[in-house]
Amino acid sequence: MDRLRLCFAELHADALLVSHLPNIRYLCGFSGSAGLLLVEQRRSTLFTDSRYTFQAREEVSGARVQIAAKGLLRAVGEALRTRRGRRWVAYSPGHVTVTQKEALKIASGSRVRWIDDGNCVERLRVVKDAEELDRMRDAAALISKVFVQIVPAIQRGVTELDLAAEIEYAMKRGGATGPSFESIVASGVRTAWAHARPTPKALQKSELVVLDLGVILRGYCSDMTRTVFLGRAPKRVRRLYHAVLEAQEAAKSAVRPGVTAGAVDAAARDVLGRHGLARYFTHSTGHGLGLEVHEMPRIGRGEEHVLREGTVLTIEPGVYIEGLGGIRIEDDVVVTAKGAVDLTTAPRDFLEL
Amino acid sequence: MDRLRLCFAELHADALLVSHLPNIRYLCGFSGSAGLLLVEQRRSTLFTDSRYTFQAREEVSGARVQIAAKGLLRAVGEALRTRRGRRWVAYSPGHVTVTQKEALKIASGSRVRWIDDGNCVERLRVVKDAEELDRMRDAAALISKVFVQIVPAIQRGVTELDLAAEIEYAMKRGGATGPSFESIVASGVRTAWAHARPTPKALQKSELVVLDLGVILRGYCSDMTRTVFLGRAPKRVRRLYHAVLEAQEAAKSAVRPGVTAGAVDAAARDVLGRHGLARYFTHSTGHGLGLEVHEMPRIGRGEEHVLREGTVLTIEPGVYIEGLGGIRIEDDVVVTAKGAVDLTTAPRDFLEL
Repeated sequence: MDRLRLCFAELHADALLVSHLPNIRYLCGFSGSAGLLLVEQRRSTLFTDSRYTFQAREEVSGARVQIAAKGLLRAVGEALRTRRGRRWVAYSPGHVTVTQKEALKIASGSRVRWIDDGNCVERLRVVKDAEELDRMRDAAALISKVFVQIVPAIQRGVTELDLAAEIEYAMKRGGATGPSFESIVASGVRTAWAHARPTPKALQKSELVVLDLGVILRGYCSDMTRTVFLGRAPKRVRRLYHAVLEAQEAAKSAVRPGVTAGAVDAAARDVLGRHGLARYFTHSTGHGLGLEVHEMPRIGRGEEHVLREGTVLTIEPGVYIEGLGGIRIEDDVVVTAKGAVDLTTAPRDFLEL
Repeated sequence: MDRLRLCFAELHADALLVSHLPNIRYLCGFSGSAGLLLVEQRRSTLFTDSRYTFQAREEVSGARVQIAAKGLLRAVGEALRTRRGRRWVAYSPGHVTVTQKEALKIASGSRVRWIDDGNCVERLRVVKDAEELDRMRDAAALISKVFVQIVPAIQRGVTELDLAAEIEYAMKRGGATGPSFESIVASGVRTAWAHARPTPKALQKSELVVLDLGVILRGYCSDMTRTVFLGRAPKRVRRLYHAVLEAQEAAKSAVRPGVTAGAVDAAARDVLGRHGLARYFTHSTGHGLGLEVHEMPRIGRGEEHVLREGTVLTIEPGVYIEGLGGIRIEDDVVVTAKGAVDLTTAPRDFLEL
């Protein structure tokens, strides 16, 4: 909260209204599903509703809790009305709907000027502290463990949905709050869908299987992908796998403080280009990871974000060929002075099961 | 899509831009995580990104698919620029952020006027057709079955998290895509938190246990709560349980076409008031259910929405007393000409385990 207040001067703001729930959790610990946090120079107030009276009391630190009986936006507006003089209040236009913005304007009156917060909380969140890195290491280790544990269950006849059920059960038994996104278990030609949901389809011999999995552990996310083959893989598939792995390694090698996210993306893209696979790599190389499974920075083409120590990223190149299938390998890494350090511990060898 | 076009005249709109993903799924079947659907008088276009090329081709009906290389908002804006004359385009200000709205305005140019869509898609979704009701009956039956199946596992020493893991495993094994919201398993004084997340706390003798659970099955949600007691319940707890059950029954009896949502809420609230418990009932009586776990209408104080045949609702009164705990009983019902018909099949008797 104190680091955040240092941004007020830069923004020319008297106060900041935080509406994005992961930002609220980051700043004051509240993990409920309805909240607004008003950060002012001398105080902070969390507005929530009566469902969260007890939870807020237990979780929140560094902010007063106010239970809003008639809606959170109205309560914030009324609080701002009581302040003296003209107020410049920063907010996040990317996390407030047009309807909410209108309601805020009406509730707070004409003395409040709303200004863009420039994603100042997200920018703080990009660099993780030691406690956050501990949690993220644990989250990455847990999903790695779950993967290793589940490998024997990847068998002919098992359905994608059953495999997903086993995996998510193992996540929870391992202490996770739950998956950090809808688990992807795709087999056969469906692996060419980068975001396939598990279906009742049974795994068959001579098929690719893509598992894209992550957990939330003590609030923090992991995100990992492994691609395996049921049976002995044809040469072409093996070559594709090794091209993707080479691209992933190149991207990891490119990671260090001071380098742009775009340069990391380019490193992966160049390798796949050299293998003649550039057009099959249809998404970006990775993304930031933390309280959210997708957060700043995006590791994509031309991204100018400069990497700093303590940022956690996914590195996940892939190729998707209709009719054949898809291959993706994804790890979580932390940016250190010495370069990328893997948080994901699961092996990356091509498994032919 | 045809029923939707009938609303265009009322809105004075030439086109409707649908941005809320459940609305997109409802209208054209696309279930990916990135999409915009532009509905015009003579055509509909789904804009998505390259990750969803194959999936969109397989899922979408009634709309052309356009893969947007440079962002969906920009692609929609460019499409609108090609249309002749001034265009009035309806959109949903409650599902578009201030940032997205700005980008849309810039991309579409000054000939497009953006107007409020009055939640026209959500209003169509309020009344379910026979196919939707089939899916919702199945979703409610599945979570009921999972609850009955899990009762023997509600034992001293089991942690809330382990119980949640068992439950979600059973959901998936039962064919669910997954839970329709983060499963609530709360025990002891934590049951007074209406939205408690499961923790590593072990269940103990003489504690209330609240299970608030739902599944997504073929796209549709269920949502059910049961409260049980570990051991023999004190008289006061038993009285509270029966007051909540009486309130739930009163609310169900109030449900029929033509009645307001507020009247249903009042029926539950009146009963709890007569038992001197009104101030412990800190939320609304229920909400609409369908593709989303919370949708129109809200069954709350003073809500003027008039119920119609084919709407599916939750009826979920509860009381929460700090230091003692909470009791909530929740069923899904469909509004029929004869009144509320339960979709939830799990028994409502007070279980003392």
